[in-house]
Amino acid sequence: MTLQNRVERRLDLALSQMERKPAPQGFAKSLRYSVMPGGARIRPTILLSVAQACGDPNPQAADAAAAALEMIHCASLVHDDLPAFDNADTRRGKPTVHAAFSEPVAVLAGDTLIVGAFEILADIKDPALAVHLMKKLGRFTGSPFGICAGQGWESESTIDLHAYHMAKTGALFIAATEMGAMAAGQDPEPWHDLGALIGQAFQVADDLRDALYDEATLGKPVGQDAALNRPNAVASYGVDGAISRLKDILAGAIASIPACEGEAALAEMVRCTAQKLTPSDVKKSAVPGE
Amino acid sequence: MTLQNRVERRLDLALSQMERKPAPQGFAKSLRYSVMPGGARIRPTILLSVAQACGDPNPQAADAAAAALEMIHCASLVHDDLPAFDNADTRRGKPTVHAAFSEPVAVLAGDTLIVGAFEILADIKDPALAVHLMKKLGRFTGSPFGICAGQGWESESTIDLHAYHMAKTGALFIAATEMGAMAAGQDPEPWHDLGALIGQAFQVADDLRDALYDEATLGKPVGQDAALNRPNAVASYGVDGAISRLKDILAGAIASIPACEGEAALAEMVRCTAQKLTPSDVKKSAVPGE
Repeated sequence: MTLQNRVERRLDLALSQMERKPAPQGFAKSLRYSVMPGGARIRPTILLSVAQACGDPNPQAADAAAAALEMIHCASLVHDDLPAFDNADTRRGKPTVHAAFSEPVAVLAGDTLIVGAFEILADIKDPALAVHLMKKLGRFTGSPFGICAGQGWESESTIDLHAYHMAKTGALFIAATEMGAMAAGQDPEPWHDLGALIGQAFQVADDLRDALYDEATLGKPVGQDAALNRPNAVASYGVDGAISRLKDILAGAIASIPACEGEAALAEMVRCTAQKLTPSDVKKSAVPGE
Repeated sequence: MTLQNRVERRLDLALSQMERKPAPQGFAKSLRYSVMPGGARIRPTILLSVAQACGDPNPQAADAAAAALEMIHCASLVHDDLPAFDNADTRRGKPTVHAAFSEPVAVLAGDTLIVGAFEILADIKDPALAVHLMKKLGRFTGSPFGICAGQGWESESTIDLHAYHMAKTGALFIAATEMGAMAAGQDPEPWHDLGALIGQAFQVADDLRDALYDEATLGKPVGQDAALNRPNAVASYGVDGAISRLKDILAGAIASIPACEGEAALAEMVRCTAQKLTPSDVKKSAVPGE
């Protein structure tokens, strides 16, 4: 079974539990619509790759951690697309949740997915591990270190760019590497930098896509950063500068991988993730080792 | 220390952790604004009253459970007040979160408080108890049994009134009595009915207040049920019928209290809660044992 299949299977199980009666059935549909079909499932795939690199002795816990992390990510997308935020009509090539259902349903679906993420972790058989994973997921979702706080920066009169990027984009990648190690019974701390660097690479790649792609290719509105006056690596460094920065960050990410039995395979996964992230026009020059 | 003081102290501790740097400071203010000063703190007071009736052997766990439950309730109020839902300008006599800050900040504050509730429970020293309490809180917050699913009914084309009331209003009262028992090391199941009946009483009392009070007295908009065509006990039974129903439900709630060392004190607490809930014009006839 591929790593992505493991994620899909655990998400499907969680959604089946959330959408059963007495849940109102229109609302229940919005939960599955928010999560399925997914995007590249990058964060949970990284999580499972790290767990595998550490021997994956507890796949039940790793699958739960991966699905919980992806559920938080999906919740953040549903809320970020709302009219009060990006006001996006499309996401992954289909109408956003508030466009397909309604704005109240989109708010509630996001709320429910946040709760669902913690419910998935609560199902892990080892309560001490479940609590440790919940603390980690909470840290990188809420405040002061999580994606909610990160998004909160966009409403401030002055912005701390480092704190903004670390929380808005970096947090869930750090959660991915650290929770993957934890699910495999390892100390998460040595895995922090790999997550932080993948997060930085993702941010630069996202900035390149936002600047270079059209809406049909990307499946969501483009030029949002410029329109909303948000910080963007292409605006700061130009396209060539952003590509050079992406290459350096990915090399640093691979170098940061702690010694473990699956180190080589994990380095390959980081290269593949970089391939997926990078706009095809600039792929050859941006991905190290290609 | 009063029960309410215990709730305030634990909420203050959690907020202090959430609002510290690097959180954006405007956003951080919105978190405390969403929670402090509170209303009557009815749900966490019930939770602590049940824990006390069971001997309160683990006050650290009981305080955490009470604060987590109240944080979920506050999150639900912040999101329910949004323009897409009740579009309320005032709550507890002050501007709602989206009115005082902004709509994006209100969405994010609610999300963060949901996460914060699970983080509070994750701090409980006994991991097995923490996980049990999280499962219970998740059940009564998310879907299919929680307040999110309950609110979801308001967007359906047809409504299951029983499922709607049980989830929207009943869920957090059931969570209160069951989590109070759990925090004291007791089986939650015998405490289900007390929570469900207090929830029903609260619903009828809320319907009476919505029909009888003005906005200045209530501190939030009135006549919302009629304006939004929502089900309401006064519309169904009339004022006298609703008062009679409230009296019957409260008598049933007191009768449902399981045998425990603090049974008499808990019955008195239910009577006091009923006093707080009931519009003053109809108090004498509605509260049993007065």
